[in-house]
Amino acid sequence: MIFSVTILGSNSAIPTLQRNPSAHLLNANERLFLIDCAEGTQLQLRRYKIHFQRIKHVLISHLHGDHFYGLIGFLTSLHLLGRKDELHLYADEELRKIIDLQLAVSRTRLVYPLIFHPLIPNRKELIIDSERLQVYSFPLVHSIPTNGFIFIEKHLSTVRIRHPRSYAYCSDTAYSEEIIPYIQGADLLYHEATFLHEMSVSAHEKFHSTAYEAATIAAKAGVKKLLIGHFSARYDELQPLLDEAKSVFPHTELAEDGKKFDICHSDNT
Amino acid sequence: MIFSVTILGSNSAIPTLQRNPSAHLLNANERLFLIDCAEGTQLQLRRYKIHFQRIKHVLISHLHGDHFYGLIGFLTSLHLLGRKDELHLYADEELRKIIDLQLAVSRTRLVYPLIFHPLIPNRKELIIDSERLQVYSFPLVHSIPTNGFIFIEKHLSTVRIRHPRSYAYCSDTAYSEEIIPYIQGADLLYHEATFLHEMSVSAHEKFHSTAYEAATIAAKAGVKKLLIGHFSARYDELQPLLDEAKSVFPHTELAEDGKKFDICHSDNT
Repeated sequence: MIFSVTILGSNSAIPTLQRNPSAHLLNANERLFLIDCAEGTQLQLRRYKIHFQRIKHVLISHLHGDHFYGLIGFLTSLHLLGRKDELHLYADEELRKIIDLQLAVSRTRLVYPLIFHPLIPNRKELIIDSERLQVYSFPLVHSIPTNGFIFIEKHLSTVRIRHPRSYAYCSDTAYSEEIIPYIQGADLLYHEATFLHEMSVSAHEKFHSTAYEAATIAAKAGVKKLLIGHFSARYDELQPLLDEAKSVFPHTELAEDGKKFDICHSDNT
Repeated sequence: MIFSVTILGSNSAIPTLQRNPSAHLLNANERLFLIDCAEGTQLQLRRYKIHFQRIKHVLISHLHGDHFYGLIGFLTSLHLLGRKDELHLYADEELRKIIDLQLAVSRTRLVYPLIFHPLIPNRKELIIDSERLQVYSFPLVHSIPTNGFIFIEKHLSTVRIRHPRSYAYCSDTAYSEEIIPYIQGADLLYHEATFLHEMSVSAHEKFHSTAYEAATIAAKAGVKKLLIGHFSARYDELQPLLDEAKSVFPHTELAEDGKKFDICHSDNT
């Protein structure tokens, strides 16, 4: 069964020609989940040849622009392309107002059902429970209400899975050991690493993490592998961020735009 | 004195990897005006090396997404980059609500003054009157209230200008001879040409124009030169649109992404 993540954006805050802001695509057994949707995400989907209409679920971690300003354009393009299938959107309740207002001013009535699922920001919650997969939201520590997500394979009664694989997405968040129980033992953890640790004061003020801190969380949570991303535009070169994280947690990789990561069964890796 | 237009997006509706949706940049004597701001416009500004902070005025023709979904990201980036100067925004009153709601959910208070100027959609109006330039808005014929704009050099008392140059921007609009008085004799007319004339029924239903119709307006208005743009994503090749327009109005060019057009004094061309 396919279980992979494609990085559609790895920058924080401001889009650059080298790195788009946050968006990930999870493929779980050919079911596609879009996680965050910064401005330009629909072009990134085209660039990496991911068919828009196959996406059935969109999860938005929080309402900072670099995580959702591309959503209304994506929803509108699905409409113009004649989508028929339901699209499920999981986000802060306020996002519904923003979408409704923008559709109203353009007198657009979507040709497909958009099903809105408001997220609860202050506790772990099961938000998707399908035959093969469960998805939970959980609180992160940021300047506005922000959710992380964890995607966990389900045991099937007919097929024996040796180990249910999992992918945890933590963006944006200050360093907080309170998130460890939610991501404990994940096969792949994405944790934001906006800054090098020499910028830790600035990171804390902005409720962001350093590469050192992301790696510390990965180590303490006993995850199998760490991806770092959400890089400040100040960093043209990302190797120092990777080196810093690896000094604490060697099994780390950079979540660079266009990279695809297959999540393996841990007894295979 | 510089008087030029740079095309930041030439597609209609859906962004593609080849063509971004609508945005133009007018440079009038080193004063920069951004006209429409589709998703991805801030990246186009980076791509064509136009310094964000030099833009002092943004004009939005109407509230279809392919003309303004990039605005909130552009405004937020100016904020994050520490802008201090005023930014003047001219648009339908409803846009203010959309911006305010998106800033509120992210708890953002812009660090620069954003001055909103609501446009009146049903008559010609002088919206900017500076020492060297006048800008008028005027009504187009579209499915929602839509404004065209015309930028006209002013005669100076100290410097004799042979002919005050002008740039008219008409997007989106059905074919309508009612717009001719607003754009009469313009040195450069941008007029949307979403379709080939073989699609004229579809064009009329959607309140868009064909290349043949754009050229007919250019001819009847006696403009010096025509730019066509806002091309349907169905057209990979634009030459047939250009050929169709030229058959009616020979002095036509394609408004392709990244192209810059210097607007010359008509007695020089």
